[in-house]
Amino acid sequence: MTLSINDHTLITMAHGAGGRAMRCLIEEVFINVFGGEQLLRMEDQARLDMAQLSSLGDRLAYTTDSYVIDPLEFPGGNIGSLAVNGTVNDLAVGGARPLYLSCAFIIEEGIEVGLLRRIVEGMRDAALRAGVTVVTGDTKVVPRGKGDKVFINTSGIGVIEHGVNLHATQCQPGDKIIVSGSLGDHGATILQARGDLALEADLQSDCQPLHGLVQLMLAECPDIRAMRDATRGGIAAVLHEFATASGFAMRLHEEMLPVKPEVRGVCEILGLDALHFANEGRLVAVVPAKHAEALLRSMRQHPAGQDANIIGEVLDKAVARVQVATALGGERLLEMPDGELLPRIC
Amino acid sequence: MTLSINDHTLITMAHGAGGRAMRCLIEEVFINVFGGEQLLRMEDQARLDMAQLSSLGDRLAYTTDSYVIDPLEFPGGNIGSLAVNGTVNDLAVGGARPLYLSCAFIIEEGIEVGLLRRIVEGMRDAALRAGVTVVTGDTKVVPRGKGDKVFINTSGIGVIEHGVNLHATQCQPGDKIIVSGSLGDHGATILQARGDLALEADLQSDCQPLHGLVQLMLAECPDIRAMRDATRGGIAAVLHEFATASGFAMRLHEEMLPVKPEVRGVCEILGLDALHFANEGRLVAVVPAKHAEALLRSMRQHPAGQDANIIGEVLDKAVARVQVATALGGERLLEMPDGELLPRIC
Repeated sequence: MTLSINDHTLITMAHGAGGRAMRCLIEEVFINVFGGEQLLRMEDQARLDMAQLSSLGDRLAYTTDSYVIDPLEFPGGNIGSLAVNGTVNDLAVGGARPLYLSCAFIIEEGIEVGLLRRIVEGMRDAALRAGVTVVTGDTKVVPRGKGDKVFINTSGIGVIEHGVNLHATQCQPGDKIIVSGSLGDHGATILQARGDLALEADLQSDCQPLHGLVQLMLAECPDIRAMRDATRGGIAAVLHEFATASGFAMRLHEEMLPVKPEVRGVCEILGLDALHFANEGRLVAVVPAKHAEALLRSMRQHPAGQDANIIGEVLDKAVARVQVATALGGERLLEMPDGELLPRIC
Repeated sequence: MTLSINDHTLITMAHGAGGRAMRCLIEEVFINVFGGEQLLRMEDQARLDMAQLSSLGDRLAYTTDSYVIDPLEFPGGNIGSLAVNGTVNDLAVGGARPLYLSCAFIIEEGIEVGLLRRIVEGMRDAALRAGVTVVTGDTKVVPRGKGDKVFINTSGIGVIEHGVNLHATQCQPGDKIIVSGSLGDHGATILQARGDLALEADLQSDCQPLHGLVQLMLAECPDIRAMRDATRGGIAAVLHEFATASGFAMRLHEEMLPVKPEVRGVCEILGLDALHFANEGRLVAVVPAKHAEALLRSMRQHPAGQDANIIGEVLDKAVARVQVATALGGERLLEMPDGELLPRIC
């Protein structure tokens, strides 16, 4: 068996079996692309200096997500950049400074090494941009037909500075709801990339890191109650979480929702609601009303917050529901998404 | 759509889509079984007290592994207990005290909730036994034929006490190689559970946590050079890693290798070497010769080290290779496994 690898090499079961072929794959693809000294040390674990972590804050934030998106490559990113940004954002919206990631690949037998390399390059570039380091990893291979090309899990570690306390339970009546940018771009892009649509719109995923925007927001307004990145289930799922955790109803104003015309078009064709569409670079924040306008001005100075808008408020109604004030002066309830319509969006 | 779930409910794409059905699955299976307050808080991240972590040591250990074993349930465990013990052991053999785990499921559409529940119960029991807490998680569902029932990723965080420094680079000529128990039990059990064998042997996986044994070993002998749990690729892969990292050859003595007769039988039938078989509750340690006998006596007092044995030594030969002194007085090279023969063993 020859062990040398190039971009046209097809992955075999041997590449996941712990022996020489796997070592070769890891060196040729992961270590070559990441250039990571941590990974090179061949220990099964990363070791991180506790004093350095402690100097940055008083709590460690820890999160995990698996990515099973279809297709693997799309306008604005690939599963690799998504896996980095998704986990970076989970840390960031909890108020943590993202620092270290793990990455674990489940690869289907038969894919080309070139695809894997592009994905790993997407991870590397996203990690550089977000200022995080991939410090530990794992590779498994499953037989043809027992997976779907590539699944990635990233877990992440960050540090929360003393005094930062974001919790969905803290939302209060009168608070304003702010979104950091246009809604549904990622979801609409993935649907189009699958070829499910009869139109050719100029769409691009919003996949990007949000830690910089979050740091700026916390500096401007330390009293922010809660933040979430609006991924699976869209901002509808986030607002239902906020409503359930706080016990107060949330109201959105339809005309304040930033939805691009192209995304609106996709929604109309499919009869879907952009508020249920996944985003991968958008956050929703609940903030005290008196700080909302100043915070919004700051957010718009940041590249990831240019299209930020105040979209609603927390109501003085002790029911866990989300309602939308329509442009025509009516009210409708925004349901928690069942989610059957948008599988494998992340 | 009815959202209530029982053990005969089949998983659908909606259970992974971020909406009500997913919330229902998480509550009914994960939160019911784990009973975790951390998971109940509905934050996407766990927050861990840094002062408490710092009080336990000066470095954080961090690791990840995905588990794709086939079959999911086997004598001695299931993919859930495996996913906990595997990550606990990766932390432990680096000298860390395992503390927190993340768990992320990729579920294939169509499996029964009852199977998922048994797996999660396996995780819970293993976590209790290992003294670790699952603090954050994720659930994805992929369509039928795009996965294989259940894949699990666990990442883990532990703390390394000041003064503990295990590194494969530290192996020195004359050092003894110790293994904590019989070799190949897990690999042979999985092959039999697949129905690949023509025999019915009384086999059981060695799947178990090793952190207690490791703590006892470090207390007895703080000068241990390096440890590894011998999973994919078996002790052959571990010893090749030690040889490559240290630059010294390793020699085993065939008659000292603890291999059960049933496992030896499986190896003979298949023409495989038990030294290439995966273990999920066995470690290999390299220790200074002068401490080896005392350490071995201590290990044998521990339930996870009853069958521990000194199996070889580091040679004063600056070549990265592993050799076996046979019972008949000969020598053979132990190859790094290609690994094609034992896929999906963990």
